[in-house]
Amino acid sequence: MTADARSKPAIALAMGDPAGISPELTAKIVALDEVRSAARIVVVGDRRVFDAGAAVARVVVDLDVIGPGAPLPPETDRLALVDLAHLDPAAVTRGEASRTGGEFALANYRYALELVAKGQAQAVCFTPFNKQSMRMALPSYDDEIRFTAGVLGVTGPATEFNVLDRLWNARVTSHVPLSQVASLITLEAVVDALELTAASLRAAGFETPRIAVAGLNPHAGDGGNFGREEIDVIAPAVARARAKGVPVKGPFPADTVFVRARTGAFDAVLTMYHDQGQIAMKLMGFDRGVTVLGGFPFPICTPAHGTAYDIAGKGVANPGATRAAILLAAEMALRIPR
Amino acid sequence: MTADARSKPAIALAMGDPAGISPELTAKIVALDEVRSAARIVVVGDRRVFDAGAAVARVVVDLDVIGPGAPLPPETDRLALVDLAHLDPAAVTRGEASRTGGEFALANYRYALELVAKGQAQAVCFTPFNKQSMRMALPSYDDEIRFTAGVLGVTGPATEFNVLDRLWNARVTSHVPLSQVASLITLEAVVDALELTAASLRAAGFETPRIAVAGLNPHAGDGGNFGREEIDVIAPAVARARAKGVPVKGPFPADTVFVRARTGAFDAVLTMYHDQGQIAMKLMGFDRGVTVLGGFPFPICTPAHGTAYDIAGKGVANPGATRAAILLAAEMALRIPR
Repeated sequence: MTADARSKPAIALAMGDPAGISPELTAKIVALDEVRSAARIVVVGDRRVFDAGAAVARVVVDLDVIGPGAPLPPETDRLALVDLAHLDPAAVTRGEASRTGGEFALANYRYALELVAKGQAQAVCFTPFNKQSMRMALPSYDDEIRFTAGVLGVTGPATEFNVLDRLWNARVTSHVPLSQVASLITLEAVVDALELTAASLRAAGFETPRIAVAGLNPHAGDGGNFGREEIDVIAPAVARARAKGVPVKGPFPADTVFVRARTGAFDAVLTMYHDQGQIAMKLMGFDRGVTVLGGFPFPICTPAHGTAYDIAGKGVANPGATRAAILLAAEMALRIPR
Repeated sequence: MTADARSKPAIALAMGDPAGISPELTAKIVALDEVRSAARIVVVGDRRVFDAGAAVARVVVDLDVIGPGAPLPPETDRLALVDLAHLDPAAVTRGEASRTGGEFALANYRYALELVAKGQAQAVCFTPFNKQSMRMALPSYDDEIRFTAGVLGVTGPATEFNVLDRLWNARVTSHVPLSQVASLITLEAVVDALELTAASLRAAGFETPRIAVAGLNPHAGDGGNFGREEIDVIAPAVARARAKGVPVKGPFPADTVFVRARTGAFDAVLTMYHDQGQIAMKLMGFDRGVTVLGGFPFPICTPAHGTAYDIAGKGVANPGATRAAILLAAEMALRIPR
């Protein structure tokens, strides 16, 4: 065992939806020297699906295949693949959502989470899931956050961060109708989100993260003329979070806070609802960004983009966001006391 | 009178807030050959404030001064200034909102509107107002739209468009609390906004404007999972508008519709609420864009940016957005049957 291997975190990389670009991305990413030197990668999936992805990606990868349930070999620099042997690539049609595809991705992801829960790896990454396939496989499937909380038995606040380059975006509410957003903006919800944001940024290496909070209403309420949540809820939440040591400013008008954040004024923006952040992040290029799940005992990262069914199997998938997801997970894992 | 002068529309250019960059912008803009060849400009303000602006802008402008109430001279290529002789520049402190400043801007704007209403000009432009000054001058002042409707006696639907380069943004609701947005998204409101958008784009020269409609909820409701307004209200409104000849598509998820529009897929995006469009437009550089008031019998355009109190009097104000406002007003005025 080299000193280098000892200091490297192990990342369980779950293969996502097999009908999209996930197999290609998995193969492309483990072939990158930069990724291999940042982390020890343990792919979780099916050897045949991986090989099909490597063929599409036109990469040759040497790896140790491990059976399901078997312990990982002692720490080593070699790439490992846990072969759950549960999917013949021929059983899935490229570019089509299916229950089979959803079952494959769910089983890999669950195995990866459990691998880290058992202490055999320090972080989880996964290549893109297809929500439709996931719901076919598990009708109660809501989103990654709730599924992960269920597998890990986490009951505290959990959320999703969007990370583009060095800018993080978190939100107080997410997949709820806009008509319900205002009633969900409570002092507790905003304070919880701020504490979770600060903790996650610190876990990613920001010693004193500069966090901005967006208002809820146009012009952040314009002094109460267009809504009072900024005065009655958000500003008091900011004050309480600051009293708890969270370095946060705001509320700021939502339509200019990202213009400022883009120039480096903030490390993170907490938005009140889904599209407030997503409109901005997608325009700034979030499809090359990373999604981080927050509120769990270890880092969980995935590329922000989707399964890209339209280019599946063509070998043209850009691995940049997946690469960024692995590197961020490795950086965060290194900071976990071992 | 030259053929050129006959074909040129006359634009009444109201001087805005005197404590900011408005006087400087006014002088800079009327000195531009490009502006003078597109329109006959009639500045409405005070000769002394204009001269102070010209001194800041370091331009020398030759103009015909006309007294208040006097008819404009016959069509000519010469620049004219209606001197309301109502403000000594020394009475206003640069960089400070004041009742005096608001009264100046309001009087100029009202005069400009009435000039066009009387048929002496074909369009109105104005340099930036300061909302605080306006409210000091007229406590009932709400926004430009309602003030203009009051002066012109317009009772039909009126709105504000944001125009950046060739992309227009309109919205169904504007300065209202987010908690009220969903209840204001009615079939009639969406259809009205679509018809107004189509009419305004046609007035600006888009023969068949390509209009996209944003959804209200995250992922445009995700098939009803995160809200039903797309299914129950917006899609039926799109169908009704299409039946009325409005070339519109959607509803699309709000977080990707501007990514598509930016690449030229649409000429206009109708958003459901203020920040849905403003977050996107400001990130794309809307401060160099133009605000167009829609629903009035003639074009009314203004730069999108504000009074920039921080750089008032320094001579560094960028006239690009004001130039774009005048050129757009001129283009729209040319299309009005005379």
